[in-house]
Parts: sequence; structure tokens; C-alpha cells
Amino acid sequence: MRTQLTLLLALILCTCVRAQPDFSFLTDEENAFVRSELQRLTLRQKAGQMTQVAVDLVFEGPTYVLTVPPVFSEERLNRIVGELEIGSLLNVPSRSIPTPEEYHDYIGRLQAKAMETTGIPILYGQDAVHGANYVRGSTLFAQPLGVAASFNTELARELARITAYELKAASIPWNFSPAMDVGRHPAWPRTWESFGEDPYLNQQFGLAMLQGYQQNDVADRHSVVACLKHFTGYGAPRSGHDRTPAYLPERQLREYYLPQFRTAIDSGALTVMVNSGEINGVPVHTSKELLTDILRGELGFEGLLVSDWQDVRYLYERHKVATNLKEAVKMAIDAGLDMSMTAVTTDFPEMVVELVQEGDLSESRIDTSVARILAVKVALGLYEKHLWDPAEFPDFGSEKFGRKALQSAEEAIVLLKNDGLPLPISPEKRILVVGPTADNMRSLNGGWTYSWQGEKADDYLADYHTIREALEIEFPDRVTYLEGASFDTLKNVDAAVTAAEEVDILVVCLGELSYTEDPGNLNSLILPEAQRNLFQQLHATGKPIVLVMAAGRPRLMSGMANRSRAVLFAPYPGPRGGDAIAGILSGRVNPSGRLPLTYPRHPNALLSYDHKATEARNGGFNPLFEFGAGLSYTDFRYSELELSSRVMNPDDSLEVSLRVTNEGDRAGKHAVLLFTSDLVASVTPSVNRLRKFTKLHLEPGEYRDITFTLTPEDLSFIGRDNRPVTEPGTFRITVGELSEEFDYED
Amino acid sequence: MRTQLTLLLALILCTCVRAQPDFSFLTDEENAFVRSELQRLTLRQKAGQMTQVAVDLVFEGPTYVLTVPPVFSEERLNRIVGELEIGSLLNVPSRSIPTPEEYHDYIGRLQAKAMETTGIPILYGQDAVHGANYVRGSTLFAQPLGVAASFNTELARELARITAYELKAASIPWNFSPAMDVGRHPAWPRTWESFGEDPYLNQQFGLAMLQGYQQNDVADRHSVVACLKHFTGYGAPRSGHDRTPAYLPERQLREYYLPQFRTAIDSGALTVMVNSGEINGVPVHTSKELLTDILRGELGFEGLLVSDWQDVRYLYERHKVATNLKEAVKMAIDAGLDMSMTAVTTDFPEMVVELVQEGDLSESRIDTSVARILAVKVALGLYEKHLWDPAEFPDFGSEKFGRKALQSAEEAIVLLKNDGLPLPISPEKRILVVGPTADNMRSLNGGWTYSWQGEKADDYLADYHTIREALEIEFPDRVTYLEGASFDTLKNVDAAVTAAEEVDILVVCLGELSYTEDPGNLNSLILPEAQRNLFQQLHATGKPIVLVMAAGRPRLMSGMANRSRAVLFAPYPGPRGGDAIAGILSGRVNPSGRLPLTYPRHPNALLSYDHKATEARNGGFNPLFEFGAGLSYTDFRYSELELSSRVMNPDDSLEVSLRVTNEGDRAGKHAVLLFTSDLVASVTPSVNRLRKFTKLHLEPGEYRDITFTLTPEDLSFIGRDNRPVTEPGTFRITVGELSEEFDYED
Repeated sequence: MRTQLTLLLALILCTCVRAQPDFSFLTDEENAFVRSELQRLTLRQKAGQMTQVAVDLVFEGPTYVLTVPPVFSEERLNRIVGELEIGSLLNVPSRSIPTPEEYHDYIGRLQAKAMETTGIPILYGQDAVHGANYVRGSTLFAQPLGVAASFNTELARELARITAYELKAASIPWNFSPAMDVGRHPAWPRTWESFGEDPYLNQQFGLAMLQGYQQNDVADRHSVVACLKHFTGYGAPRSGHDRTPAYLPERQLREYYLPQFRTAIDSGALTVMVNSGEINGVPVHTSKELLTDILRGELGFEGLLVSDWQDVRYLYERHKVATNLKEAVKMAIDAGLDMSMTAVTTDFPEMVVELVQEGDLSESRIDTSVARILAVKVALGLYEKHLWDPAEFPDFGSEKFGRKALQSAEEAIVLLKNDGLPLPISPEKRILVVGPTADNMRSLNGGWTYSWQGEKADDYLADYHTIREALEIEFPDRVTYLEGASFDTLKNVDAAVTAAEEVDILVVCLGELSYTEDPGNLNSLILPEAQRNLFQQLHATGKPIVLVMAAGRPRLMSGMANRSRAVLFAPYPGPRGGDAIAGILSGRVNPSGRLPLTYPRHPNALLSYDHKATEARNGGFNPLFEFGAGLSYTDFRYSELELSSRVMNPDDSLEVSLRVTNEGDRAGKHAVLLFTSDLVASVTPSVNRLRKFTKLHLEPGEYRDITFTLTPEDLSFIGRDNRPVTEPGTFRITVGELSEEFDYED
Repeated sequence: MRTQLTLLLALILCTCVRAQPDFSFLTDEENAFVRSELQRLTLRQKAGQMTQVAVDLVFEGPTYVLTVPPVFSEERLNRIVGELEIGSLLNVPSRSIPTPEEYHDYIGRLQAKAMETTGIPILYGQDAVHGANYVRGSTLFAQPLGVAASFNTELARELARITAYELKAASIPWNFSPAMDVGRHPAWPRTWESFGEDPYLNQQFGLAMLQGYQQNDVADRHSVVACLKHFTGYGAPRSGHDRTPAYLPERQLREYYLPQFRTAIDSGALTVMVNSGEINGVPVHTSKELLTDILRGELGFEGLLVSDWQDVRYLYERHKVATNLKEAVKMAIDAGLDMSMTAVTTDFPEMVVELVQEGDLSESRIDTSVARILAVKVALGLYEKHLWDPAEFPDFGSEKFGRKALQSAEEAIVLLKNDGLPLPISPEKRILVVGPTADNMRSLNGGWTYSWQGEKADDYLADYHTIREALEIEFPDRVTYLEGASFDTLKNVDAAVTAAEEVDILVVCLGELSYTEDPGNLNSLILPEAQRNLFQQLHATGKPIVLVMAAGRPRLMSGMANRSRAVLFAPYPGPRGGDAIAGILSGRVNPSGRLPLTYPRHPNALLSYDHKATEARNGGFNPLFEFGAGLSYTDFRYSELELSSRVMNPDDSLEVSLRVTNEGDRAGKHAVLLFTSDLVASVTPSVNRLRKFTKLHLEPGEYRDITFTLTPEDLSFIGRDNRPVTEPGTFRITVGELSEEFDYED
């Protein structure tokens, strides 16, 4: 009893001295430093630390439309970092793409001013979604959906490592990536920023990117701190429009939208960004249940939680849950927010100060958030070093990195159909390249490419090849190009039809331009009439068609895919996407991408692969192409699927082995996907769930014996009581055409 | 203390004697009778009472495809009612439509056998969805979506009263209606069986129908007992397909899918049917939370809960939550089911007996259900009278009832557009009627019309008028008809175009055939190509087009509505729908329907009118026609919108008054709709919610001052804690173009 009392007293004392709990990712010394910093800071300074503004605010001219080149403003720097003592900035000076050297200059001034004012380094963040896309001369890769199509997590890890390197070359230590959103509505304009429709894919690729960004040490000079986003349920808007309501019962929220965050947090993720939308009528920025009870309490997240762009303000401007900014600020902080990305406004820190002074927020609550922010700055070593010399990053924009970018493009592209063997195209064939995505870089790169909407891709990527240019190189003197149609208007279609008569093969490039977020909202997945009309007229010539769908989401191609001899899906493969497509068409590259989502056939039939049996009745599930679809030029055969046991017990694991043989006549890469089906469960089971995958490279005739290990956790689902459960019963394992069953017994 | 103890003892004694609680809708004597019946019955007989089979099982031949005419089988009667002692039957002998006299014969035999065997009358049920649609010679009305379009609850009550009368003429005392499903997915094939997308509309029309069916006394010879369906959330399948999963967070479940059931139960509903689908992964037939905790506990439902068609069996056959029938039976009964509509199988009662004998179900649990079933039979007075002489129902199929059917058709039709005043069509105009819905009765009547899928409508309704026939009568010698296209194939379209050149006005009738449930599943809301093509070619003639969309859901007509001079939506107006349409086109009838749902413009833009502000940003909500749209040939003007106060307190109500004036030159009916908007709320508020409506008839120049009374409950929503709350703040009231604001203060 006496011992317990002593312990209790010690605990109380300890709590008094240490107002904030220690961060497990800091040393004792570092934790002590954070505590001392907290004691040193004024309330106003703390409010400044909780604020993140766009870097536009330290340049001359109006936000969003700065002069080109941007003119740094010492006066505005004084205001933002000097007077308001704001502790974080983000983004790129609008309408420009600075070089690493220019960032060194800008960020150097920010850091100097910050160190001279509060003595706390600035935490600079950026959306580097497919490479350091806001740094001039950096290496850009396939977008996340394309990376997911590779089913190659090693590649993803490597791309993230390069991105971190190139961000650090520009003195940017914080990347708002990976997005692990699980894109569940095919029309959602950020589908391509997710790793597709499957939670396990998002978990595995999110983890790989996290590891690539942070390496083993976020303070390493080649590392950046990652930001998991968007917590959570962002990829499931009912309307398919960006930042609109999602309806997620707790069971489905836990099944689809927590596991990827849990894994990444367990693996050392230090920052998280909040979903801008609302779930079940509650804007996530005001959800204490999600942001505190679940994120902190259940998932054990210790790091920094940042809002998305202006989202605290939007609580009253858009969501209508607050009557003014101050109320909105209180709601978000009460819910658990640490840092507000106020973007182009600066009234947030004033509101924080007033709320504390008026007794509506406690200073200890503020301290909790500021401690987390400082802890991340400490973990990054920013107090010691917050500026990096670009000269120390010799691989920046190198050909070595470029080869990885090319690989990301090659593995991103999915060959969905190859009937009648028009592919590869033999060198003597004459080719007509036609369509709105044939000759522009935007359709290969998507948003977050030198600007939010990616509209400058053609200017900045002039040295790279569009599909047309790459084909002209790949098939010298055999290629004719005619536009035929813009995205929504027919153009010289008669000339295209005439030209079609003169060639052997038509490469019809349809799809989308670049976009992201609201501007990419869509009311119909059907392609615009002009593109369908172009296809129709070209098809009428009777020439064989290779259809290239270059788009960030599965725009419908029913009625076209069936009339094409070959179909490629190119989900924003990046600057080298043209080369990759040309290589695949010529056969120089053997395609290996597989669909990370279900490709719908009809606009109101949008089920994902892991639907329920009742949804598949009477042909209810009949997509154009299934999740995992993807062909190769060689033949991979599966055989000898074996289970280590027909029975699994709670403490067991099950080894699933099979042989994969390249029975074709050329080398190729291939992703093996393992699915499980729970035949009967208390919550209606999905017909299929992806549980494991791996990617192989096999020479002709080569085989590989691979083994997957399944644990009871791999078979679990969120049960009727909203907790994970693995229920006794029969499970089926499916790999390709092979399947085996076993029983789980508890 | 002594008194309390005595009371306690009395209570215990009482509980012992009365194993079942009393039913508040029965007298003491009736309750005692139910108890005595329970004591009398064997377990096997109880299991029989809990079973409901299709009437096909007492006829010769294979189920679903009986001979015509059907041959009653004494042998099968002995098996079903004699040996299995089954207590309830439903439906119509397949492929036939018996007269009241024939029902009198069939049901008379059932009842005689039942009384001779168990001494308990059969409870016979039927889907009389728009009149007694399975009784030959009955009066059929507009389908529920059309009834909702009337915004006339008095009419709905009258239609239900007539339906009850005509069912009783056939000795059928139980109607599986009203469906109060709130059709939230426009592609759902039972959209037309609901009262549209709004919960208040479903509540009000469901209540009116309930009152019409049950009157003040279900035992009255002109009453039937209603069945509320489908409890609950049936109208919100994610996929839009029938009987597929819905995802309903508790907050939205309570906001949209409980209030209509609560109101109807409070108003005396005695039976409820379960939703065949699953909610959040849990098949509703296995949800103790919904079927017991909420339905019994919260809503206080005392009556009989029946499954839908074979749904207990489907728990293992389709939903995969049970490994065999016995497990499924146990799950459903544990969840709270009383009666299983086993339809064409008879193994359910055996399973019940075995489960009790094996100790997996208690007999007292069985008694609870049997008591509810007997209580409904007692309430209906079936023990005293279970057969009615058709001769005592002289109004059956009368012209008096027919006039109500015509009214239901006239008020169901919505005039959505009338530009350039092609309507009414003056008598001298020559008219070409064309299109697949112009000359058939299925497109006017929908499913549940003489058969499940309504495919016999043209045979049975030959004496009624298709649109073409009605127009030929309305405009003698001025009407030409050509089909132009079937639903999905062009037919003699050249002739139609040639004929179009010869007339003044084209009445183009597009839309759907009849269907319901699974067979009506749809993968695209877009009309088939043939219909669009037909329209396109007719439009190219330059002749003015009146577009008639005859369909059970809002099939898209974008690109057609804008090129039509007038547009009518005819949501299955019933056998007299052709007459109503002709009357509206000639001006003999002044249209008064208003849309009970949002008419979408694009296939992937399916928001309802009560969406959130974030969904309307940047043109995100832009339907073709809004909820409530509907024109008249006269002009109704609103004025003098006044509130009784600018402040409402918790115990207050608020009077909202306005004047409605018919400023046009002809008489007309008009529904006035009052919406409220909660400007700021802790759960993101809908932009608008329908709170009150009323329907008026005004002569030219006449005006009416109307008053709506709003209570705090009318302003409530399901809050963050999932309980109803009315929050202080500003509310806006909108009636047409007028609006006023007031504050709620607590």
C-alpha cells in the first residue's frame, strides 16, 4: 500500500513538472528541450506555431497570382514570421517553379527571420505527390494510382526515397504524402492520388512511401517527414465530388479507413493531415471522436495533426457548423487539431489568443499542440540544421533517378486487352496516332505537376515525349499524327479518317486532361461525345485500333474497348509515360501493370471488386475489366498451389505456396495476387479480399516457388460489435485460376 | 415497504400466469383469449402459425407456373393447412387473376380447413400496391410515386380506403402496403413504389395510406390491416440494385428511416415487413438491434413482424451469414422475426420445432411471436368472420371508384416544362404520337399489375386507353401514330420522320416498361440509344415536341428536355393514365403534380434536394428538374408570408401564414410546399428540408389564406449524440420565392 502511495505521489509530481507527456520518438534530452521551449514561448508565439500559411504571403503581389519571377518581400516576411511569428509555411510561390537554389534563398530568409524572432525553425511543407513536383528540374514519377498498378512496393519505396532527396535539395523537410485514401468512388477527382480501391493496397503502398520518405531517421539529410492523408474516409464521397459528404458506418470506417493509418503510425509516421470532408454529417475537422479518441487514443498517434487548405475557415464558410471563424477555431482545436493550414489568411493565431484569453480554450490544450509541433521540428533536427546546400545533392534530377521514373511509367501502364495480337506492333506497320491525349503532357502527368491543376506540364516538360513524339521515335517514319478531336470537340476528323485509310494500325488516345480536387469534379464517367464520335468514325474504317486510355480514373470505354484490338490504361504514368507506351506498343517493354481498381462498364454500376454476394446476383457485378486485370506479352502459369495445413488455429500461421512459371518466350515482370474469401461470416463477407501480393521478374522458361504467410489477422474483419474478429469456418484462397480451402478453428 | 413487497409479489404472480404481455390494441378479454390459445397449441402448431406460404402451394402443378385456370388441390390443402398447420398464406395463384367470387371459394376452403384443424383462422395477405391489383375487376390507381406527386394526402387516404374495400370483397384482410422506403437512389427499381426521396413525404403518405387501409377499426368489414414496409433503410442501396447493401450510419438511419415508422406505429400499424437487404453488413433479418431494440424497444411496436419473400432462406443462400437453413431460422427468430414468408418452401416450421426441441430456441420465445400473430388475427376479428360475400361489396370496381382512379392519374402527372406554350394543344392541330410508351399499358401501370412484373397489363386493361388511344379520342381525326422505336430498337423510324413532316406537333412518348425488384435493376439511368436516336431524328424535323416520359424512376432526358417545347413526367399513373395525359395535352385537365424526387441531369450526379451546402458548391447540384417542380396552366402567386413571431421557444409553436392567389384565367389545383433551412447546426445542415405541405383548389381570381404550424420538433435533427435535437439559431422558412427568418432560442 505504501509503495503504491509513493508511486502515486511520484506520478503526481511528475505530472506537475512535465505538463506534456514525453514523445516516444524523442530522446529524454529532446523531450526536456521541448518542455523548456514551451515554458519560454508566449501565448502569441504558441499560436503562431500552430499556424501554417502559403509561401505566397512572403512575396510581393496578390496571393495565387504572384509576379513571374516572384519577388521576395522583406516587409511581408517581417509581418508573417516577424510579427505574427508563424511557424510553418507551405507550397510554392504561385505561377513559378523555383530551382533548389531559389528555394535555398527563400527558405534561408524564412529560417533566418524565424531564428532571429522566436528562435524556432520554420517547418516548411509541400505537396510532392509524384516526385518533388514543385521543384524545378526534379524527377517526376507516375502518380500514385500508377504506382499502385505496378503492384511493386519496392519501387514505391525507391520513388519516395528519391522524392525525399530532391525535396531536401530544396531545403524542404516535410512532404504532404502519402495519400492513403482508398478511392471508393471511381468519379472522385483524386482517384489517381490514391492507391486505388483496395484498403490493403493503400496500406502497403502508403507504408512503402512512408518508409521511403522517412527512411530509418527523419533527421537524415536525405529524409523528409511524411504526412499521412487524409484522415480519414476522404476517398468515399457519396456524390463522387471532392470534399463532399461521406456516409461511413463505424464498421466500414474501421474495415476500410483505419488499418492503413494504424500501420503507418506504428511504423513511425510523425504527421497526419485531416480529411476536408464530413463523415455522417460531422466535418472531420470537428470530430473529436476521429481526431482524438481514435487517432490518438486507439491508434496511438503522437505527432502533428495538420488541417488541409483553409479547412478551419471552411467550417463556417462551407460546412455551416460554426457561425464565425472564432467558433470554428475552437471546434477544430477542441476536436484535436494541432496546426491550421490557414493558407492565405492570418487571423487564425489571433483567434487562438483570444479564445485562451477569454477562457474558451485552456493554455494547456494549446501547449499540447505546440509540443507536438516542436517535437516534429526537433525530430527533424531543424534546430540544428534547416537549410541544405543544393550542391550537396548531386543526384538531383539525374539520369539515375530518371531511370526509376521510366520504370515507374512502364510498370504503371496496364494492358487490358490484346485480342488478335495487334501488339506488339511490328516495325513495318504504318501507324496513325490520333486523339486528344496523344500529344500533350498533361494527360500523362495529372495534377500536382508544376502547379495544382498541372496546366503547365507542356511548358515544363517540353524535353519529354508525348505519346505521339515517343511513337515517332519508336517507329521512325511510320507514324502519322492527327488530332481528330480535342477533349470535347471534333477537330479535322475527316482528315483523320482519310489518314486512317492509309495506315495499318490506329493508336487512338482518349481520356482526360490534368486536374485535381474540385476542378476535376465530374457528373458523368462517360467520355465526352466528341471522343466517342471520333472513335466511332475511326472504327468505321475497319482498321485495327489500339485504344490508349490516358486518364486519372476509369472513364468509361464500353462500346470502344470491345471494338478495339488492344486496350491500354495509362493512369498518369508521368513525364516518361509516352516512352513507356511507345515501348509497350513496339514490344521493347513487356507490360506488367495490373488494375488497382475495378473498371466499370456502365455509369450506374460502380461496385468494387470486394462487393457482397448479393450485389453479384443476376449479373449485378459485370465490370468492363476486373480489379487485378493486366496482360503481359509472355505467359505466366501458376501451379502447385499448396497450403501448409487444412486447419488454422488462433496461434498458427498458414503457408501458401505456389509455383509461377514463365512459359512464354520473353522475359517479363508479373505481380501475383492472393485473395481470400470467407465463405460464411456473421457480417456478410466480401466475395473476395486481396491479402497478399508480390512482384516477380522471370526469364523465359524460368519458374519461381513463392510462399505467402497468412495469419489469423489476415482473415479478420470488423464484426458485429465493431471489433476485429476472425471467425471459425471455411476460407477459400484464390491465386489466379487456382484455389484451395481450409478451415479456421478457434 | 410492505406495500411495495406486495406489489412485487403480485407482479411476479401475474408474470407467471401471463407469460406474454398484454397487447394494448386488444381488450382484456381478447388478451385472455390469446393466452388461452397459446396454452392450447402444440409446438408444431405454433411453428405453423409462424409460417406463411404462397397460395400456389394449394393448387395443382408447379409453383410459379400454375395451370390457367388454376386447379385447387384438396390434397395439397391437406398437406399445407391440415398436416403442416400453416397459419398464413399470401399472393395470387400464379398466372391467374381470380375474381372476388373465386377468392371466396379458395379462401373459404383454406379457412374451413384451418378452422377444422387448428381452429385458428388463416391470415391471408397480398401485395395490393396500387389498388387490389391481384383481384380481377378491381380499381387500379396511380402507383405510390405518382400518389406522392399529387401532394394530396386526402386522395391517398381515399385510394387506400377503396383498396381495402376491394380486398375485403375478395376476403383478403391483410395488405402488404404502404411501402415507406424513401427512395434515395434514383436507379433503384422500386423507386416508384416509394413516395419519393423525402422522409417527410414518405411519413405523410404512409400515414394516410395506413389510415385508409385500417380506418378506425381494422375489424370493420371495409378495413384491412396494413403492413409497413420495409423496415428499414430498404430504399438506399449503394449499388442502386434491389436488395443490395445499404450503408447507413446510425445518425442518418435515425434521420431518414425511422420517423415514418414511428409515426405509423403510433397511429396503430399492426404489422411490419422486414427489409430484405443488409445495412452496414448486417442482413436486416438478423439484426436484433433493428428488429428488437429499435422496433420493439424504441418504437414500441407490438404487432406482427413478417419477413419478405424467402428471406430467412436467403440468409444462407445469398447473404452468407448462415451455413444452413436451421442456423438462418435461429438467427432471424433471435433477431425478432415473428412470421417467415417461406413462400414456396415448407421446411421452416420443421426447423422451428427442431430448434426448440434441441434447446436452441426457447418455447417462450416462440410463444411471443405466436401471441403477436394471434393478436392480429383477433384484432381483425377473423375468429368470428374470415370470409366475406362479394355481393356485399356493391361498389367493387364501380365507376365511383374509377373516378378516384382517374383523379389519381391526373394529379400524378407532372408538367415539367411548357415553353413557347405548345400546351394545351389547340383542337385543330395535327398530332403525331410516337415512341415505345405511346401505345401500351405496362408503361402506365408498372409492376404489381395483375402479376409481379406487370407484363399482363395490356391483356387485362384492354378496355382502358393507352396514351395513343386516349389522344385519338381527345383529338378526333387529328392523331397519327407510329411506333418509331421499341424500348431498345428503332422501328420504322423513317416513316415516323416522314409522318412528322405532315403534322403540327409531335408527342414523343419515351420511358420504361413495367418491372419491379431485381428484374428492374439498371446499370445506367440513360435511356437506351434507340429512344435517344428516335428523339434526335424527330427533333431534326423542326416540329415542336411534347416529350412524355412514362417511367417509374427519373430516366435521364438531358439533351431532350431542352429541345422539347413541353415535358411531362408520368410516374405510372395507372389504367386511366392515358386519359389523364390526353386531358392535360388538350387542356381539359389542369396539371397539378409536383416532383416527389430530384430529376437528375447526369448519371453520376444523383444528389437529392436535401443535400449539404458543400455538395452544391461550384454548381455541384444542378439537376434537370428540382424536387417540387411542376407547372400549371394557371398562375398561382404567393404573397404576405408572415410569421407569428421572430422568436420560437421550446414550448412554442410558430404560425406561418401566406396567401395563395390564382391569378390565371382557369381553375386549378396547387400544392404549397414549406421548406426550412437551419442556417448553422452542429451536424452539417441540409440546405433545405420539406416540413409541411397542403393542396388547394382555386378558381380563377380566388385566393386562400393558409397557415402552417411549426413546432420545435419540426426543426429538429439527429444530433452528434444520435438523438433528436432542436438547436438555437436562425432558421429560414421558404415557400416558393418567398422566405422569412426567425430565431429558435432555448
